[in-house]
Amino acid sequence: MKRYALGIEYDGSGFNGWQAQANDPSVQVCVENAISKIANHPLRLACAGRTDTGVHAVCQVAHFDSQVIRTERQWVLGINSHLPDTVCVRWVQQVDEEFHARFSAIERHYQYRILNRWVRPALRVGLVSWCRRPLDIEIMNTAVGALLGEHDFSAFRSAGCKANHAVREVTKVSVQRKEDEIILNIAANSFLYHMVRNIAGSLIKIGHGEKPVEWMGKLLAEGDRKQAGMTAPADGLYFMSVRYPDAFRIPGDLAAFPQVR
Amino acid sequence: MKRYALGIEYDGSGFNGWQAQANDPSVQVCVENAISKIANHPLRLACAGRTDTGVHAVCQVAHFDSQVIRTERQWVLGINSHLPDTVCVRWVQQVDEEFHARFSAIERHYQYRILNRWVRPALRVGLVSWCRRPLDIEIMNTAVGALLGEHDFSAFRSAGCKANHAVREVTKVSVQRKEDEIILNIAANSFLYHMVRNIAGSLIKIGHGEKPVEWMGKLLAEGDRKQAGMTAPADGLYFMSVRYPDAFRIPGDLAAFPQVR
Repeated sequence: MKRYALGIEYDGSGFNGWQAQANDPSVQVCVENAISKIANHPLRLACAGRTDTGVHAVCQVAHFDSQVIRTERQWVLGINSHLPDTVCVRWVQQVDEEFHARFSAIERHYQYRILNRWVRPALRVGLVSWCRRPLDIEIMNTAVGALLGEHDFSAFRSAGCKANHAVREVTKVSVQRKEDEIILNIAANSFLYHMVRNIAGSLIKIGHGEKPVEWMGKLLAEGDRKQAGMTAPADGLYFMSVRYPDAFRIPGDLAAFPQVR
Repeated sequence: MKRYALGIEYDGSGFNGWQAQANDPSVQVCVENAISKIANHPLRLACAGRTDTGVHAVCQVAHFDSQVIRTERQWVLGINSHLPDTVCVRWVQQVDEEFHARFSAIERHYQYRILNRWVRPALRVGLVSWCRRPLDIEIMNTAVGALLGEHDFSAFRSAGCKANHAVREVTKVSVQRKEDEIILNIAANSFLYHMVRNIAGSLIKIGHGEKPVEWMGKLLAEGDRKQAGMTAPADGLYFMSVRYPDAFRIPGDLAAFPQVR
């Protein structure tokens, strides 16, 4: 048996998230079906980060097992020919059988994109979140500094989270402007349910001046989800990349994390 | 009678271009209908650049006449509430009655975006064009230099063009990389039918090394459409902005034209 890892890009707008569900379209089932047509047998995928309804991925990482031998070109072109046009496989590579897309991951990188102007988006519908009122990027970038390091993130953990505990380590975080978008980049060992969208919701209140810059640290210290801002919409959220121990030789682009503190 | 100018953003994917046509969805009819609901009378729009099927606009400029007086906020929010989510009005402003969205324009700016990687896009479907083989940006950026200035652009003029002559003045042009996209920016006094897409088609051949860097100048000098590359797909094309004489005080973003020579 051989283990294969793959990188997957998708527009989450048309899917009920990554995970296979009764009758709803899921990225997982869609990709499993496409791979099984090339492998000639049924299979299951395990992924690094099970994204929610409407959340996008620039490079989700997953793995599957198969006896079949194919070149990367055969896998990628074959699988992509069986995928809808909003999902594609970017690379496929044989990996050590100890590799696990979820459990071997050291660091995950998410991005949250906010179109900040008084008029709603027309281009990029479903691909950006939208804030009508002006946001102060400098203050937002200062505020997220409080998240760096190991903390209990209960304040940003939505009901229904299945994690054993709420302690996570945020390794990189920044807020910057990119043309008319405000971009939150955040990397951590792993994330709680809705964690990035809950952080984004509180951050927007700080950016609007509705809450002071210290509020982020205060929320974190108090650990009360009810005090924090609302969950920001899924549209602007991107699962960017995953980092694994170098020994697994998984392609990654965390190196491209911008403006690291 | 008052004259109003407006800036319009749209995702061209769902439209048969700007211009009103028998039964096909056009941006023009869509926006005219929305404005007439706020103005309480029927009206016609004239625009700066009639984009083709599938072509997008970051800020198309158009004008209409009305006796009605509304604040900018009333126009914009009112019109947008009657538009589909892939079209929005970004600003509305009363202008001198001599202003004409098409005939007063001094300079138009288009952008052509190419995703350059071996795997097709999944995010940004319909929003970028795609080239599988590597493109050499340096060579492409050198090649487009030949387009600068006043020339007869017959080599890049598609059949069906209704212009009286093919002489145009390209005022700015550049090719640059932006993450995984290659971006052609081009500004000219005005453009012929399919001119940017025909230039992009030939430029791609040069970027692939299929044709030498001098080919762009040669095509231009020979003026034979049949010798040039094919028309590149509409997906990657954006009508970015229009410049008018300062006296009209039209909001513009041509100042943001990148890496001008």
